[in-house]
Amino acid sequence: MFDPFFHPEGVAVIGASRNPHKLGFGVLRNLVDYGYRGGIYPVNRSATEILGKRCYSTVTDVPDPVDLAVVVVPAKAVAATLEECGERGIGHAVIVSGGFGETGEEGRQREEQVKRVVDAYGMQVIGPNCIGTIDTHTPVNTTFVTGMPEAGEIGFSSQSGAMVAAVIDWALGAGVGFSRIASLGNQVDVNETQMIEAIRKDPQTAVITAYIEGVSDGRSFMDMAQQTSREKPFVVLKGGHGERGSEAVASHTGALAGSFEAYKAAFERSGVLRADTMEEMFDWARALAWQPLPEGRNVAVLTNAGGPAILAVDALEEAGLRIASLSESTRSYLRERLPAAASINNPVDVLAGSGPGSYAVALDALLTDPTVDAVLVIQAPQDWFLPASLAEVVGDVATSHNKPVIASIMGKASVDDALSILHKRKIPNVTFPERAASVLAAMVKRREWLTRKVDSAATFTDIDREVADAAVAAEAWGDLVEAYGIPLPSQQVASTLEEAVEIAGEIGYPVALKIWDDEVVHKTEVGGVRLNIRNEKELKENYRAVVDALELPAGVEKKVLVQRMLEGGYEVIVGIRQDAQFGPLILFGSGGVDVELLRDVETGIAPLNRYRAEELIDATRAGVKLRGWRNQPEADRETVIEYLQRMAQLAVDYPSITELEINPLYVLPKGEGAFAVDIRGSAAETKAERKTADLEG
Amino acid sequence: MFDPFFHPEGVAVIGASRNPHKLGFGVLRNLVDYGYRGGIYPVNRSATEILGKRCYSTVTDVPDPVDLAVVVVPAKAVAATLEECGERGIGHAVIVSGGFGETGEEGRQREEQVKRVVDAYGMQVIGPNCIGTIDTHTPVNTTFVTGMPEAGEIGFSSQSGAMVAAVIDWALGAGVGFSRIASLGNQVDVNETQMIEAIRKDPQTAVITAYIEGVSDGRSFMDMAQQTSREKPFVVLKGGHGERGSEAVASHTGALAGSFEAYKAAFERSGVLRADTMEEMFDWARALAWQPLPEGRNVAVLTNAGGPAILAVDALEEAGLRIASLSESTRSYLRERLPAAASINNPVDVLAGSGPGSYAVALDALLTDPTVDAVLVIQAPQDWFLPASLAEVVGDVATSHNKPVIASIMGKASVDDALSILHKRKIPNVTFPERAASVLAAMVKRREWLTRKVDSAATFTDIDREVADAAVAAEAWGDLVEAYGIPLPSQQVASTLEEAVEIAGEIGYPVALKIWDDEVVHKTEVGGVRLNIRNEKELKENYRAVVDALELPAGVEKKVLVQRMLEGGYEVIVGIRQDAQFGPLILFGSGGVDVELLRDVETGIAPLNRYRAEELIDATRAGVKLRGWRNQPEADRETVIEYLQRMAQLAVDYPSITELEINPLYVLPKGEGAFAVDIRGSAAETKAERKTADLEG
Repeated sequence: MFDPFFHPEGVAVIGASRNPHKLGFGVLRNLVDYGYRGGIYPVNRSATEILGKRCYSTVTDVPDPVDLAVVVVPAKAVAATLEECGERGIGHAVIVSGGFGETGEEGRQREEQVKRVVDAYGMQVIGPNCIGTIDTHTPVNTTFVTGMPEAGEIGFSSQSGAMVAAVIDWALGAGVGFSRIASLGNQVDVNETQMIEAIRKDPQTAVITAYIEGVSDGRSFMDMAQQTSREKPFVVLKGGHGERGSEAVASHTGALAGSFEAYKAAFERSGVLRADTMEEMFDWARALAWQPLPEGRNVAVLTNAGGPAILAVDALEEAGLRIASLSESTRSYLRERLPAAASINNPVDVLAGSGPGSYAVALDALLTDPTVDAVLVIQAPQDWFLPASLAEVVGDVATSHNKPVIASIMGKASVDDALSILHKRKIPNVTFPERAASVLAAMVKRREWLTRKVDSAATFTDIDREVADAAVAAEAWGDLVEAYGIPLPSQQVASTLEEAVEIAGEIGYPVALKIWDDEVVHKTEVGGVRLNIRNEKELKENYRAVVDALELPAGVEKKVLVQRMLEGGYEVIVGIRQDAQFGPLILFGSGGVDVELLRDVETGIAPLNRYRAEELIDATRAGVKLRGWRNQPEADRETVIEYLQRMAQLAVDYPSITELEINPLYVLPKGEGAFAVDIRGSAAETKAERKTADLEG
Repeated sequence: MFDPFFHPEGVAVIGASRNPHKLGFGVLRNLVDYGYRGGIYPVNRSATEILGKRCYSTVTDVPDPVDLAVVVVPAKAVAATLEECGERGIGHAVIVSGGFGETGEEGRQREEQVKRVVDAYGMQVIGPNCIGTIDTHTPVNTTFVTGMPEAGEIGFSSQSGAMVAAVIDWALGAGVGFSRIASLGNQVDVNETQMIEAIRKDPQTAVITAYIEGVSDGRSFMDMAQQTSREKPFVVLKGGHGERGSEAVASHTGALAGSFEAYKAAFERSGVLRADTMEEMFDWARALAWQPLPEGRNVAVLTNAGGPAILAVDALEEAGLRIASLSESTRSYLRERLPAAASINNPVDVLAGSGPGSYAVALDALLTDPTVDAVLVIQAPQDWFLPASLAEVVGDVATSHNKPVIASIMGKASVDDALSILHKRKIPNVTFPERAASVLAAMVKRREWLTRKVDSAATFTDIDREVADAAVAAEAWGDLVEAYGIPLPSQQVASTLEEAVEIAGEIGYPVALKIWDDEVVHKTEVGGVRLNIRNEKELKENYRAVVDALELPAGVEKKVLVQRMLEGGYEVIVGIRQDAQFGPLILFGSGGVDVELLRDVETGIAPLNRYRAEELIDATRAGVKLRGWRNQPEADRETVIEYLQRMAQLAVDYPSITELEINPLYVLPKGEGAFAVDIRGSAAETKAERKTADLEG
């Protein structure tokens, strides 16, 4: 089984150096200084001893047991060195050396060589171009970075070495412990998905954090992420959102980006908590590692000052949390015990003159109150008592309850002692109380994800794949959608006005007329659409205009689609896309001509189960409307749920379809169904630029 | 002239105490310890000397010169003490004592007493229930808070004493200097507007920051704010956004809240930079005090590591900044000088092995490049050189250019020296590079505000105020809007079907039928609206349904509005409201039945000049549409600009109208005008709950 954090019995440092400015010295120093208890074997041809450890000329000379090599030799020598390790029977290596894929073509070739050695010997290799791994519990520290965090519960996997260095420095300064830290480098062998899985399996790790620029395989990542989230909180910081960010990622790791929307959908689905900043990631991680999850969204704020509490309330509300309405018994309990001028409503203000005793009484009361799911304790700087004594009180009271407590002992100059006590008591502290809001929101989000229903995606068996295959081959997107059980409104193509009149007579008025051509993407804009034609007279008046909207070479026949006009419903958009990383995506949102302006579209990962289909719908304003907006009739939401799942299945079945969009899907009132009015698609076989349309407005 | 920061020649501390745990000791200690050079006179009946200063039994015994009293006696004694000060000819006082309005009715009466003394003697008084003021330059420190920030350029006015204490502690820890700090307390005399104005006039203050829960008078605040913003950057943190936040404000300061939307509009108009958190306020303040404003939005990122730079790029893009495209000459200059594997595109990555020299060369090149408006310098933790040496380099290079530089020397344990050097060199540092984005965005916002056109609001002279007065008296909102030059579509009220047919014939088909009643707010929802009636037949079919939509007592005549149906335009909403604090507001956004769902409405302060009317329109999706969306014809935007200004004038002219809404204002294509289709209003004289309507859908 894969474990980059196995407990090695002996470690060879190949490229160990006497020069304290060299990485090969730093790695050896860290193994020695940070308590590794196995054998440490520096490999260096010209030295006999470094840091009191006997040196060996080659790894072949190193005595048993040795099962891990840290390689710090020049890039050119890495493949040969690794081969020696393979011959020597060493199964694990960390390649610190840089000068590979990140430097250009020559480096890429060297990386290929390394990969061949890895495959030949079946080794497990981290790197190259990484800064190694830390296991604080065993302990083993194969990095060259000065300083090692205390043993703790947070695991961290990073696709940026710099981020590892920053985290180590931050952890030391903030007094936060870590369990396992890994820098992945160029991922010639071990990738982010395997590494995170390994950290998850570590019993010392309570929370997993990861900095990710790209994933090796979207779907495997999602499987791993979902499994991980079920067992432990999993917080990800994704680098490269926008256009320039993705470019920077591409040039940094060469990772196949995938769209940020797809990443968000994949994280959402897998229960991954996506942080927006490094600060947020570690704020969340601490709280998730140290505190129980809140049962609900109701937060009590306990403070010695009005202003900071008001800012906290603002931030909590904006993060979607609620300010708990305290029970009458809590309020009367507090009224008897706190100063007369104290506020006994939430936020509870013990006032500036109160000491840790008042805080203790109030915090205990709030944690006891069933209307309260979590407490934020704020202390604005004061001269009455040492902040450290409040830290003790908060730690003590919180221990006897099973609800999360976040502290905000404010200030900088005077609070170091208090913070180290809080951290010892596993109470997270934020310097500014507003930051507690995102922490609690993340905890609530995790609790809700953990309790949501799990079922598998619906599989529709009524689909005639032969018909569908033919439709895909012909790029007849309307036929394809119909084959997947989504009806189109009654319609037929007319070549002449007479035919159009006849068709309209059959279909029944009102009808819509639409120019019929593959090449026209925005028919409305060229004037090729006339809606709400009520009778034959109006049809005759409008037919010519539709035909004339398009200039075609002489002799090419112009055709017009005559379509049943639907009324009294809602226009939504249902689409599918293929993402470079996560494969089939499904989109839902407000439809019609204003899609791009409204920006009311949510993205999900296909396939969909019923629950996720509902989530997707409910996350949009379009979804709000479907439930019956302003006394309009409730729309046929059930049918939309079904069709979303059908489209998701289509996306999975035909990965060659790069894009397919029903806009609008016209949703009638409850029980009356929904119809795919306009459909636009494109497949991988056609040129990327060419949008092929069959029923498009 | 008002100046709460005049340089007093002598200060009496009334209620000075020998007990180090008393506020009356702290105030005296701070005056003595923090370098005040004038006379210090403790007033205490039972002591002869405190902290080496001779005590006096009453303020009357204190020798000249004495022109400031700090009052720290029990609440009951404050009025009498202040009276003694008045008699003694002392013109300024800071009342630290609490126990006034914040504690209930008895306290409110005591506050009234104090107010009467203040008025009788024409004194300038800060407080009560405040923690005093600090002038770091003179210096004078009348607070009891331990610690005083270094002399610096940032001024801070606060409606929360706790926030002052937190800021002092933060400033000491972060090594950031302040010029003037004031805690306002219950504002019995000096209010936030006067205080901020006084800080603005201080030549030592380069940036003004303020924590505000409410303002004493919205319009005076705006006048002051606009004047202030013209002279110096003015950053505000507003406490109390949402429902519970506003409640908390009301119970904390008793401030008349006004809506948060109105505050935002007032800040926007006055050039006030609104921060969302304390951290943001001081991040911005430092940068605005220390660094020049950027000329544009193009930012270069200079880094030694890819990951943190990618996160910075993400955050910069999300904040609306651009990643500068470096000039070819800069890139070739860098290519020659940096390591071969370094990235010479933006972000410029000097790589982990580079030292301060490489940073110096690259930073100088970036600041020289005309495509770059600002530089963010990131240093991920490394072991090659002391962060302090990079801090020196950044400070040194930045000095020889006139572009803003923000540093992000990351980490916590190892960077204290570097930060103090950066702060000495006036380079702001952020621990996590993402935070630089909001800083630079605020700087850009200020630059843009400073350069925008200033002109006065349009005044329309074609308004018949007699007609308008009559319309207001009759709550005939349609007539009122017409009197202000905004036309309604052709329409007339019918009492019978025959009348309706006749009216429609005159107006011309298509028409709309709407039930005519004052009490029905959502006519569409009761079925009282039929649109797009194309001919007499359809009118006859629909008339009955409209009439039947409403149940009226027998004998009451039912009327129906027959209105010209407009087609081919856009529906927008134009509204006015009266805010408790800021008076007349003007609203613009997407109209129609989905206003509440779309939430595409922007709020401005009335009256409007042309520039601000355009800003309001352009900030909405409705505004984007008016310019011609997806090849739809450009709408009559000019007319909308004019009508917005007319409605703003109406809001100013009739403050008794609490709400008036044109929804939709139907905007036809360019040159064809716009029509007020439905209008709803309510005036202060009517009950607040009763919405009176005249032409409403």
